[in-house]
Amino acid sequence: MSQFSEDFQADLRDLMRWRRDVRRFRPDPVDEALLQECLATFALAPSVGLSEPWRIVRVESPTARAAALTNFEAANTAALDGYDGEKARVYSGLKLTGMREAPVQLAIFCDEATDKGAGLGAATMPEMRRYSVVAAITQFWLYSRARGLGLGWVSILDPDRLCQDLDIPEDWALVAYLCIGWPEEESAAPELELAGWEQRRHHVPVETR
Amino acid sequence: MSQFSEDFQADLRDLMRWRRDVRRFRPDPVDEALLQECLATFALAPSVGLSEPWRIVRVESPTARAAALTNFEAANTAALDGYDGEKARVYSGLKLTGMREAPVQLAIFCDEATDKGAGLGAATMPEMRRYSVVAAITQFWLYSRARGLGLGWVSILDPDRLCQDLDIPEDWALVAYLCIGWPEEESAAPELELAGWEQRRHHVPVETR
Repeated sequence: MSQFSEDFQADLRDLMRWRRDVRRFRPDPVDEALLQECLATFALAPSVGLSEPWRIVRVESPTARAAALTNFEAANTAALDGYDGEKARVYSGLKLTGMREAPVQLAIFCDEATDKGAGLGAATMPEMRRYSVVAAITQFWLYSRARGLGLGWVSILDPDRLCQDLDIPEDWALVAYLCIGWPEEESAAPELELAGWEQRRHHVPVETR
Repeated sequence: MSQFSEDFQADLRDLMRWRRDVRRFRPDPVDEALLQECLATFALAPSVGLSEPWRIVRVESPTARAAALTNFEAANTAALDGYDGEKARVYSGLKLTGMREAPVQLAIFCDEATDKGAGLGAATMPEMRRYSVVAAITQFWLYSRARGLGLGWVSILDPDRLCQDLDIPEDWALVAYLCIGWPEEESAAPELELAGWEQRRHHVPVETR
């Protein structure tokens, strides 16, 4: 028997429905205590062998933010060059980052060389360390959303360049660049769907062996 | 303002605290409607460019289950050979899989060649497709747990061998092998901590740039 009520289960489904990737933020600051409360969910995340390989870098200085934004702009221009015709037209109209507005910006890394956990569970699948970081980000995302914050995950970046620009230790791999703040608006539909880029599938593909 | 109550937020923190990786299952079957309700959370997960690259394979037949278990046993023996002394003694006493008991077993893949989303967000970081699958698994894990089910993620496997044994399409990459069922017991502490393998850190490492 679950200790969680049916109301909680329904609200959890609603939270997942409303989660969204947010790219449009109000300029209002995020209270530091609230941010810390959300970040605390990292310590509750599953990790392979209890390796807890997540490493978080707050991107705060004007220099660091400018380097990240320049990085995005170069990668985004290159990505646009890969599309033709209608797809290029739609792509160029998409808002794909909140990096110019988001009051909080976090680069999230995986320490590939951590001793913690002594490698348990990561011998045949070393990518499990990075997957542990993704699981932690997902929990942080859901909890931040439950507190009303918006979060956008930017992946249109050259990871090597970002690591160099932010002076990141050699063994850390970039997993995500997160923009966090108060959303301009709420929507149950993804921006990419509203903009006509792609539709959600609404079913889950399952096969049997 | 969040539409989610403080009670919900507190319960969500509790859910994350109680989630656990479950390796000890009761033999009772899992109701099919409940499993489908949990699987439906995949369709609510974030995915890069709305690529929704998750592909789920139910491992049901005795042949498929035997192949997966043999795969685990070989990888686990090889892993044990990598430890010495006290660490080897502790490792050999760990229960690292529920594959012998779990009524439901799912192999979760990422379709690396999907056209869906037209590659948006995955040009410089193609691993984002696999990360999208991990995010979906994390949501499924949390929701299944909220419904009282236990879930264990097995990564002590040779992924190439599993793909071959289960006749998986060439472009699909193994992300996770999940054991699902009713947990024998509840615990707020990870098995690896109780067994003396590794301790949780209880703080989240944050730096600033």
